[in-house]
Formats: sequence, structure tokens, C-alpha cells
Amino acid sequence: MVLVATRNPLNLGAAARAMSNFGGSTLRVVRPYEPSFREARSAVGASELLAKAEQFDSVASAVADCSLIVGTTAGSDRVLQHPLKPLEKAAPLIRRKLAAGRVALLFGSEKRGLSNQDMSHCHWLLRIPTRDAHASMNLGQAVAVCVYELIRLPGRAGSLPERKPALAEDLERITRILADVLRASGYVKGNSNQSFDEDLRRMILRLDLDENDSQLWLGMLRQVLWKVCSAAEATKR
Amino acid sequence: MVLVATRNPLNLGAAARAMSNFGGSTLRVVRPYEPSFREARSAVGASELLAKAEQFDSVASAVADCSLIVGTTAGSDRVLQHPLKPLEKAAPLIRRKLAAGRVALLFGSEKRGLSNQDMSHCHWLLRIPTRDAHASMNLGQAVAVCVYELIRLPGRAGSLPERKPALAEDLERITRILADVLRASGYVKGNSNQSFDEDLRRMILRLDLDENDSQLWLGMLRQVLWKVCSAAEATKR
Repeated sequence: MVLVATRNPLNLGAAARAMSNFGGSTLRVVRPYEPSFREARSAVGASELLAKAEQFDSVASAVADCSLIVGTTAGSDRVLQHPLKPLEKAAPLIRRKLAAGRVALLFGSEKRGLSNQDMSHCHWLLRIPTRDAHASMNLGQAVAVCVYELIRLPGRAGSLPERKPALAEDLERITRILADVLRASGYVKGNSNQSFDEDLRRMILRLDLDENDSQLWLGMLRQVLWKVCSAAEATKR
Repeated sequence: MVLVATRNPLNLGAAARAMSNFGGSTLRVVRPYEPSFREARSAVGASELLAKAEQFDSVASAVADCSLIVGTTAGSDRVLQHPLKPLEKAAPLIRRKLAAGRVALLFGSEKRGLSNQDMSHCHWLLRIPTRDAHASMNLGQAVAVCVYELIRLPGRAGSLPERKPALAEDLERITRILADVLRASGYVKGNSNQSFDEDLRRMILRLDLDENDSQLWLGMLRQVLWKVCSAAEATKR
């Protein structure tokens, strides 16, 4: 469970409590509002989960060792650039991935939810099936509903061993090298453009690579990058 | 939804919010802690549901017009004298009764839950499947999980519109151009090697591209191929 830019200490505490109720194991926070994080951790009865919560500066670092990244959204006022699954369909997919590696479930801030940049780290998004007229849930309640759905009917989960999915840090490497290749090839002009990088990251995540394939792509792209750059050198001379 | 002897105004607000999120209609409170009830109703952004909440002196009067009364319990430290059903089995029974009349779902106070006397008004009890080691949920979160389960769609595939899959001929083009890029980059030596081409094709098929992404990849790879080949030319000269 990854809480991004959470502001309210009560919500941090509530999220940790819900996880503890249903057996979630790891809580991570990205850029929390500092006084809230301190307050939540020092609250009477603060859970062990919260005491052990790790703090990160970026979504990328918080999810680096995860093989599936899922964002949560109320999905109303934003044109989403990701596949969106309702919670009850998302849960079996998440459970299956959990058998093979870590899964990060991202919750945005109380006011704004996840930013587009946060979402660009996600393979896909899930939506709790709230009414359109009142879609936005309290953060602590949203976490509770998600972890409940994840443990609901555990008996059904029996499934085949999955391919071992790629790590987020390898996918990030692929994204960066591909961006360099495309720039050096003249496919994109000029320097880093944040929205281009985000598009590219989403495109790579859609590939749903497994670990072997991610290594294969890294090897291929590195070689291509070397060639394309030496080409650029040669034409300069 | 009937909240019995609730003490914390935030929980009253949270219960109302969750009901509004999922389309619950009527909130009733029995012997609330008066200052909390006043505070919750006057809070900024208090929901309409809370404003319309009816107040009762007894469970009996609060559930008088209902045809099924269900109590909630963490079910740990009490010898229960009622049938106890897990939430996911309780929900279909409740939905069926809702088609014919009103159903009351009772939540006890934060500290003690429902008293034996409160429970004596119940047809049966439901339990949210929390861990035994940490069974007791936050009240607002418990309400959220219950109303979510009540509206949760039976796990049928009423699926979202599918992505339009890529055409085989485009995937074949991608495979061939990628093979050319890799040869021109020196990733593979020598001429066409059939098993290499087959490996590459399988790898591209595993990506499970949709139509849009296949066009994107074609465009990128063509540009990279052009650059890599012009590099090879340049170094020859």
C-alpha cells in the first residue's frame, strides 16, 4: 500500500488500521505532509504498521521493487490515459501477481488524488464502484474497501504460477533508454519533455513484460542506443 | 443503516459519507452521544444523509418498520447467541430481503460494539472477515466495507469495452523492422537466422499490443532503423 502526498494524520492512521484488520503487510508513504506523518506515528495506539512505514521522495523509488503498480482513482473529472478496472475485477488480477512478487496499490492525496505523473508509473488503474453523483471516498475508507476486496473469498484464489513479472526499476530503465534512443534518432526533437516521458512510461507498462523479456529488451535497447549515438558522433565529424 | 450509541462525530460523518458513496438511503441513530451528533450534523460538508438522519431512543423503535435486522460484530470476546454469517454470504441475503422491504444493519459503539440487548433485536449477525489478531475495525471503515459489499456486482463479466487488438500483419512488420535494427546495431551478427527471427516474433506477440500501440511502435522503429542505417553508411565512408 503506497500513500502519496497524504495530508490528514487520521487518514494515515485509518489506512494502517484497515491494513492491519485485513492482513496487509507493508505501508509506504511518498512525500507525506510532514507534521501529519509525525503526528500519526506518535498517536496513542498507532499501529506497528505505521511505525514501520517507510518514507520515500518519489513514486518511482517507492515502487521500485514491485512488479505490478496499480493506481486508485475516483475516475470522474480526468481524462484517463490508462486502462481502468472496477475493484472487483482488479482484485483477482492483483492476487495472482501477489503470488509471484510485490504489488503496489497507490492512493493519492485527499484533495487531488493521484497526479498524472504519479499515474504514469501505474500499469493500470482501479476504481471503487461508487455512485457518479458522489464518487470521491474518504481515504481511510477507500483503503479499507480495497484491502477487504483483496482478502475476500481467499479460497477461490487457487491459480497457476505466474510468469515472474518485471521489476518496476527495470521498466524504468527501459523507458529511459528508449527515450534516449528516440531522441538520438530524431523521433522526438529537443530535450526532455515530461509528458513525452510519461507517455513512453505508460506505453512500456502496457507491454506487461516478464522478467526475462525485460532483460532482453534492456540488452537490445542498450546496443541500439550505443549504435545510434556513435552514428550521431560520426555524422558530426 | 442504524448506528447505536456512536460517540465520535467523525465516525458519524464517515458513515454517512460511505452510504452516500454507495447509494445507501436512510441513516438512523440510536442514543448517539448528543454533542457528537450535533457536531457531526453541523460540520462543513456534512452530508444530506446526516442532516436527514432520524434519532431514536431505542433499537426497537429504530427498526420497527424493518423486515430484517442484522447486527454487526467483531465476534471475538463474546459468546454469540445468534447465527453468524461472514459479510460476503450475508450480502446476498440482505439484497434479497431489500427487494421486499426494509433491512436494518446495526453498528454498535466504537468501544463496546452492540450490547447483548441490542443484538436481541437481530435476526442474525454478520462479521467482516478481519484477522483474529486485529478484528475490531474503525466504525466508519466497517460501514464503508459493508455498503460496498451490498452494492458489489456479482462477479460476472459485464466488461469494459475491449482494446482493439493489433493486426498480425502489423506485428509482422514490427518484428521485421526490429530484426533489421538489431542487425544494423550489431546486436546480432551475420545474416538472417531463422530461429532468431522466430524468437523475436514470439517476443513481439507476448507484448499483446493493441492497434494504437502497434502503430506507435512501427513509427518509432522505422525512425530508429533509418538512423542506425545512416550510421552504418557514415562509418563505411
